[in-house]
Amino acid sequence: DPNLKIFSLNSNPALAQEIAQFIGVELGKCSVTRFSDGEVQINIEESIRGCDVYIVQSTSGPVNEHLMELLIMIDALKRASAKTINVVLPYYGYARQDRKARAREPITAKLVANLLETAGTTRLITLDLHAPQIQGFFDVPIDHLMGVPILGEYFQEKGLNKDEIVIVSPDHGGVTRARKLADRLKAPIAIIDKRRPRPNVSEVMNIVGNVEGKIAILIDDIIDTAGTITLAANAISENGAKEVYACCTHPVLSGPAMERIENSKIKELVVTNSIALAPEKKTDKVVELSVAPLIGEAIIRVHEDQSVSTLFD
Amino acid sequence: DPNLKIFSLNSNPALAQEIAQFIGVELGKCSVTRFSDGEVQINIEESIRGCDVYIVQSTSGPVNEHLMELLIMIDALKRASAKTINVVLPYYGYARQDRKARAREPITAKLVANLLETAGTTRLITLDLHAPQIQGFFDVPIDHLMGVPILGEYFQEKGLNKDEIVIVSPDHGGVTRARKLADRLKAPIAIIDKRRPRPNVSEVMNIVGNVEGKIAILIDDIIDTAGTITLAANAISENGAKEVYACCTHPVLSGPAMERIENSKIKELVVTNSIALAPEKKTDKVVELSVAPLIGEAIIRVHEDQSVSTLFD
Ligand SMILES: Nc1ncnc2c1ncn2[C@@H]1O[C@H](COP(=O)(O)O)[C@@H](O)[C@H]1O
Ligand SMILES: Nc1ncnc2c1ncn2[C@@H]1O[C@H](COP(=O)(O)O)[C@@H](O)[C@H]1O
Repeated sequence: DPNLKIFSLNSNPALAQEIAQFIGVELGKCSVTRFSDGEVQINIEESIRGCDVYIVQSTSGPVNEHLMELLIMIDALKRASAKTINVVLPYYGYARQDRKARAREPITAKLVANLLETAGTTRLITLDLHAPQIQGFFDVPIDHLMGVPILGEYFQEKGLNKDEIVIVSPDHGGVTRARKLADRLKAPIAIIDKRRPRPNVSEVMNIVGNVEGKIAILIDDIIDTAGTITLAANAISENGAKEVYACCTHPVLSGPAMERIENSKIKELVVTNSIALAPEKKTDKVVELSVAPLIGEAIIRVHEDQSVSTLFD
Repeated sequence: DPNLKIFSLNSNPALAQEIAQFIGVELGKCSVTRFSDGEVQINIEESIRGCDVYIVQSTSGPVNEHLMELLIMIDALKRASAKTINVVLPYYGYARQDRKARAREPITAKLVANLLETAGTTRLITLDLHAPQIQGFFDVPIDHLMGVPILGEYFQEKGLNKDEIVIVSPDHGGVTRARKLADRLKAPIAIIDKRRPRPNVSEVMNIVGNVEGKIAILIDDIIDTAGTITLAANAISENGAKEVYACCTHPVLSGPAMERIENSKIKELVVTNSIALAPEKKTDKVVELSVAPLIGEAIIRVHEDQSVSTLFD
């Protein structure tokens, strides 16, 4: 369909290319560069009048650069008479600032939603939002894709002994996600139950569920500085797990993350390419799975007005 | 008035401090830092409920960082029940992207206006917009301050021979600004009239007006890479000017700017602190004037519901 156009900005060009290939179209021609003073300069080099345009961009780091590229691109497409402007945001930056946890905090995840709508977004396609409530921050339709089937398939095909697997949530907040992976792998779950007995006393890593002699698979949505996940891995290991895997959809991996992972009991870290990995993060321990077929299929279905939710059956 | 609060973000802390001092208040307590992954983290450390809040921030480079700091701060203040949120933007980044000069260009200056309003801005105080039309991009009230009186006063007090001064606009677009400075200094004007006789033939720097034997003062709103201003300075010098000064409100000074200025016929570059100068740009040729008294006075008048326009009489 010549009215379906896919554009890539600068956060995930390789993923965008893969998505376009999956769908069977060429990426739209545009250049996204900087003026001498650092302001974003966008040139869209083909007509998009009357087209359904999909922009592939994660607001991963540098988050403010990537977000402004996205907003300016949306503005340019709107003024160039795009019929629909569909933002494909594999990773939603600022998603953790989704509530006022303390007085006078911003709710930046909501601000970002407002900015995207103000600029001219007509639909959002995104993946594993940190909190599903962020869907309600938008008034335009959202297709919310899930990484669990991709992660689950990887472990299924790995040939692990099925009877030995246990899926572990590194905190209370992630139990629903762990349950979903456990269902796919027909495995039990366990939960790391961190508690601080008294103020200024260090946390106790209590494990609810049985990990002894098991192959433990830790799952989270985001791994950022990797503090939580590596402490969990080591606690599981000390409690008798024979192997520890970790997986997540969004490998933020900032600051001390790589060092912590290398020095931890984690045997393999399985992630998706929702955030492009810098070359130095592609170590022997890291396995990268592609979300291109998932996102590509979602775009095809959206474009043909078909249900996207059946993608997860 | 305890209901008047001034907060500084990271672009111009020294200017914000000076403004607060001029008004006679302490800067509001807040920290504007980054999480490990680069996301903006803001903590407002005092109550601002029911207050008139003024945020001092230029969207100078790194423009996307400074703009996102500003938007997130506005969001936080709005949710913390500020009565009014007054954005003091000495330099309006993206102002040059104020129209579609080519097909499919964004109009980022308008996008920025929409983003500021969406976040919760109730008033804008700004200085020498690249195009005065940008005022019309907003629906909230704007106070548009002018740098010309400050620049004019500097040259008046410098003790130059008044009969020898000529004010020069480096291009057609800047003639109105040059006229304003000329009125203050009771001097004639001249204009650099660049023309390209045929495509692919280099430009001719024709000078309209008399500069021979004169003290020329070039004026522009923004000096960015300094290409225009240094070519103009050298052309004026070749046409017999005995001294060449240059001045502008907003010293962006990116890329080759400093080298070009050092190697040019410009004797002195006079700028304001609407954009904080990096230490390496504070050379012997550069004179920095403060807009703190101008902005401070404007804030006092706005807060007391008095006319700001009389500031320029
Ligand atoms: N980029 C970030 N890095 C680390 N912490 C963050 C970030 N953004 C927000 N937060 C904090 O993380 C908390 C939310 O995390 P969670 O409890 O996992 O939903 C909030 O208290 C936020 O202040
Ligand atoms: N940050 C920037 N640096 C250099 N040129 C820019 C910048 N932003 C916009 N422009 C271009 O400058 C032109 C407007 O400049 P002017 O004619 O001086 O108003 C437009 O054609 C823009 O594409």
